[in-house]
Amino acid sequence: MTSSRDLRPLFAPRSVAVVGASADPAKWGNVLARGALRGSHRRSVYLVNRAGGEILGARTYPSLGDLPEAPELAVISVPVAGFEQAVADALAVGSKAIVAISAGLGEHDEEGRRVEAAVAERVRAEGAVMLGPNCLGVFDAGEQLDLGWSELPPGAVALVSQSGNLALELARRAVASGLGFSRFASLGNQADLVAADLLDELAAHEPTRVIALYLEDFRDGRAFVAAAARAMETGTPVILLSGGVSHASARAAQSHTGALVSDVRAIDAACSAAGIVRVTTPKQLIDAAQALLSPRRPGGRRVAVYADGGGHGVVACDVLDAAGLETPELSESTTTSLRLHLPATASVSNPVDFAGGGERGLASYADVGRVLLDSGDADSVLLTGYFGGYGVDTPELSDKELAAARSLADAARESRGVLVVHTSYAESPAADALRQGGVPVYGDVESAVAALALLSEPAGAGRNIVTAEVELSLLAPPAPGYAAARAFVAEAGVPMTASRSARTLEKTVAAAAELGYPVALKAADLLHKSDMGGVQLGLVDEHALRESFRTLASRLATKEFSVEKMAPADEGVELIVGAKRDPRFGAVVLVGLGGVYAE
Amino acid sequence: MTSSRDLRPLFAPRSVAVVGASADPAKWGNVLARGALRGSHRRSVYLVNRAGGEILGARTYPSLGDLPEAPELAVISVPVAGFEQAVADALAVGSKAIVAISAGLGEHDEEGRRVEAAVAERVRAEGAVMLGPNCLGVFDAGEQLDLGWSELPPGAVALVSQSGNLALELARRAVASGLGFSRFASLGNQADLVAADLLDELAAHEPTRVIALYLEDFRDGRAFVAAAARAMETGTPVILLSGGVSHASARAAQSHTGALVSDVRAIDAACSAAGIVRVTTPKQLIDAAQALLSPRRPGGRRVAVYADGGGHGVVACDVLDAAGLETPELSESTTTSLRLHLPATASVSNPVDFAGGGERGLASYADVGRVLLDSGDADSVLLTGYFGGYGVDTPELSDKELAAARSLADAARESRGVLVVHTSYAESPAADALRQGGVPVYGDVESAVAALALLSEPAGAGRNIVTAEVELSLLAPPAPGYAAARAFVAEAGVPMTASRSARTLEKTVAAAAELGYPVALKAADLLHKSDMGGVQLGLVDEHALRESFRTLASRLATKEFSVEKMAPADEGVELIVGAKRDPRFGAVVLVGLGGVYAE
Repeated sequence: MTSSRDLRPLFAPRSVAVVGASADPAKWGNVLARGALRGSHRRSVYLVNRAGGEILGARTYPSLGDLPEAPELAVISVPVAGFEQAVADALAVGSKAIVAISAGLGEHDEEGRRVEAAVAERVRAEGAVMLGPNCLGVFDAGEQLDLGWSELPPGAVALVSQSGNLALELARRAVASGLGFSRFASLGNQADLVAADLLDELAAHEPTRVIALYLEDFRDGRAFVAAAARAMETGTPVILLSGGVSHASARAAQSHTGALVSDVRAIDAACSAAGIVRVTTPKQLIDAAQALLSPRRPGGRRVAVYADGGGHGVVACDVLDAAGLETPELSESTTTSLRLHLPATASVSNPVDFAGGGERGLASYADVGRVLLDSGDADSVLLTGYFGGYGVDTPELSDKELAAARSLADAARESRGVLVVHTSYAESPAADALRQGGVPVYGDVESAVAALALLSEPAGAGRNIVTAEVELSLLAPPAPGYAAARAFVAEAGVPMTASRSARTLEKTVAAAAELGYPVALKAADLLHKSDMGGVQLGLVDEHALRESFRTLASRLATKEFSVEKMAPADEGVELIVGAKRDPRFGAVVLVGLGGVYAE
Repeated sequence: MTSSRDLRPLFAPRSVAVVGASADPAKWGNVLARGALRGSHRRSVYLVNRAGGEILGARTYPSLGDLPEAPELAVISVPVAGFEQAVADALAVGSKAIVAISAGLGEHDEEGRRVEAAVAERVRAEGAVMLGPNCLGVFDAGEQLDLGWSELPPGAVALVSQSGNLALELARRAVASGLGFSRFASLGNQADLVAADLLDELAAHEPTRVIALYLEDFRDGRAFVAAAARAMETGTPVILLSGGVSHASARAAQSHTGALVSDVRAIDAACSAAGIVRVTTPKQLIDAAQALLSPRRPGGRRVAVYADGGGHGVVACDVLDAAGLETPELSESTTTSLRLHLPATASVSNPVDFAGGGERGLASYADVGRVLLDSGDADSVLLTGYFGGYGVDTPELSDKELAAARSLADAARESRGVLVVHTSYAESPAADALRQGGVPVYGDVESAVAALALLSEPAGAGRNIVTAEVELSLLAPPAPGYAAARAFVAEAGVPMTASRSARTLEKTVAAAAELGYPVALKAADLLHKSDMGGVQLGLVDEHALRESFRTLASRLATKEFSVEKMAPADEGVELIVGAKRDPRFGAVVLVGLGGVYAE
């Protein structure tokens, strides 16, 4: 079930009011007003300021009630004391979307949480939507809606972020990588709209081809994962930078957006189930976005490498190997074709090494790329090293290099293979030409390899959400100790072999006789029993049992024994099962190989 | 014992000849001539070309014999056919250093290996030294010696590389990071001078403060490690980018420089023993060099983080945590001091979050940095995020930001703590000012954290070279099978418990009676015995033994048994021991926890 919220008034409003517009260039109310006015050829823009007068050459209105029409979108950038009233005023005049900039609310204290919750309830009751509070604004390239987020280049990435400065870094990195933005939404405290709502909206947004998120709080984690999975089913990859997974960062996220942070294992499991690409830094996020905009995925993990110098090829192969990718030998027909394009000194195995022959014929970069892409010997091709630098270092080579770059991008587009490029000259004209042709280009080889590794994951891998409705009988928590834990598990319905507790040799022998041989004898007062030799299995008779008892009693000073009917080990698999309740993802269950494999 | 080779004629020659100087700008002989002539105010420079005439406005000589004096250094850049004779000529006139550019030798075929070995022997016999062949040249900033390596900025990093284009990438990265070079040597095939010789020379070279190497072949691995350890003992860190550790890259390195590549585990063990910093990409190498130029090491792993926005602080803490660094809470006296410098909305826990308050007082970046550096709450401080961008995005803030950067660098220099900076604006004037003040600055948070992790390793950790002379008796290799392997180990002098092989129940029982109880019974025909349940320990009597025999015979279809006197397990540690011979590091021995921990 997708989100039923209508976000059209948020991203494509017919009219906008900035409440708290300011003439002071150091204030956010000024940035918002300037941005809003940039869209005044597309929609009515009203600036509201109690003091009146002109701001940025535009007239202002003392209150929302004074406007000639109800603004569909109201940006609220007033001090916290006036926040609740300002939203009430906007709803009263009929606004359908609120962008709440005001801070000092839920991220600040309990009272703030109460206020923002009440405001959100009112917003929903009026059939409106609210972004924030404590957010920075919203941006839509196609609509020329620029509220607080100036000068983002247009493009295919939608960005949703709970941090402003981090979004700034992401934007800078995106521009350096030749990427642009379809939309940006600053989430703030998510009092009303949460990340899942945005995901549904962005998945349906035609110009958006990749969704990137920075989140500190998932709110309803299951709804988030479901929305992300829906986005990916419609062909829009989701990349998540999740902040607050360590102790200190969780403390910080709490003070930053009032976030309730989740266990990193729960996040990992959820991302893996939904097919979300999880990253840990802004650089990784933009690198992944560039990769995922690639028109095609490789059909496997085999990579052909080529470079102008031996060292770059060697290093690339080592990094590919460490990333679990393969660099197979090339077939004879491929090496024969390669020889036609390269000088005799070049090496035509994988990695292909021009051996400094690049200058002599820049077209060979395109020719060799095409041979490798079409060879069938590899699923993808990595060009690594100097290409991109010929024109920079030797201007008379510029035109030839640019032509080679365009021809290489054509080859990639026309083949079934995938091409990724690493160059020390990642911001050169040749690099730009490659990117414009749909080829991901990176400035360091580790990023290029990470992109290949990401693209080479089998499509749909991990997209495996199991929804289970489980009837839980509430059991009283068990008393401490091995016997009580064993009884607790049995009571919960897990079949257990019969067992008896005993503290003396004679009681142990009597218990075994009652259960029937073979039995196991365990040192019940030890935590890691088998590590310490405290588990004696397959005791076939009283003799063996007595011997084991003496061993445990003397070597481990065991006082408390558990005598258990042997379970047929060859018919079972030893498992570890655990569970905890995550504040955002709910019940999280761990199932894995048990025993000595468990840690 | 350090290398006894005299490299003064190589790096600081009194006269230079370029044999094979060329007038064609596309040829390396032209680049070498141009570079050599740049140093003609420091030394005599002679260009040798059989055709005669002028090159780059300088007269040429038809042969080395025609020069007015013997050139101390001869650069040999002639086709392979003339290589041997050219070196002979240089030695004949009395040259003491050869830079052998010529390629197509040892990296090409067996004949090439023979030629270069013969030439190297001749060079050594004459008391001279030779770099290469198949190398690109040599550079010394202080001596203004520029042979093939133009326009490197002067600085504190000495670079030794077996790849030319890779060195080019390293140089570009170094410049972008504000680093420069003291010396550069292109190693080529290492027919005479090897990396270890260079290490000894560079460790004694005053302007060199860090040695960075790209190596595909260690030659004498033990000599290399010993030389690296000596360099580090004199305070010069060594960073190694080692190419050729994967199957494909080893194949490539073989064709690139004729390298014999080593097992990556041998390289890792050697680096760890000598304290060499091993990296896997050019970016990591330059990032590490910048870190190691830091004047100080943190005394521990506690890091205080500060940022202008919450998101950057949160992400930095997560990345620090993943790198094994700590972000402890700050003491009350520290938070009290911080409050004096920050607006009320700022968060003064760790990470410190200016909450967008940076613009209001850029000096607080220096003030907060000083408080954290001097607090004693942390061993190092990480500033992360936007600082460096104020002046770029808002030119009227430039001067204030630059002043704050200088003041912050002063604070770092005056404190006992270590400061590392991440900024999205790593090439800004403020970033440059920080670097000039000795503060490492990185463009991505993962690199800044990697630098902190590197610096936070306890000094001298891992510098632990054990030299052992072992008397090896050559034993005949063992016959296949468990019993033979057991006998082989016993013959080598390792004490083993007594054991007997048996194939029937009765022989098993007889063997146990002979050895004395308790015994162990093993399925001798299984490889991973204990995983399969094929090891029955502590059998106290014939009854238990018969039961175990039946279990193994029926469950595992065991045909061949080993009856062994029980070893006292509580007195021993289970070990795995292995050995192999690496082509460059010699005998490599593995010792680790055995049994189920071994894989």
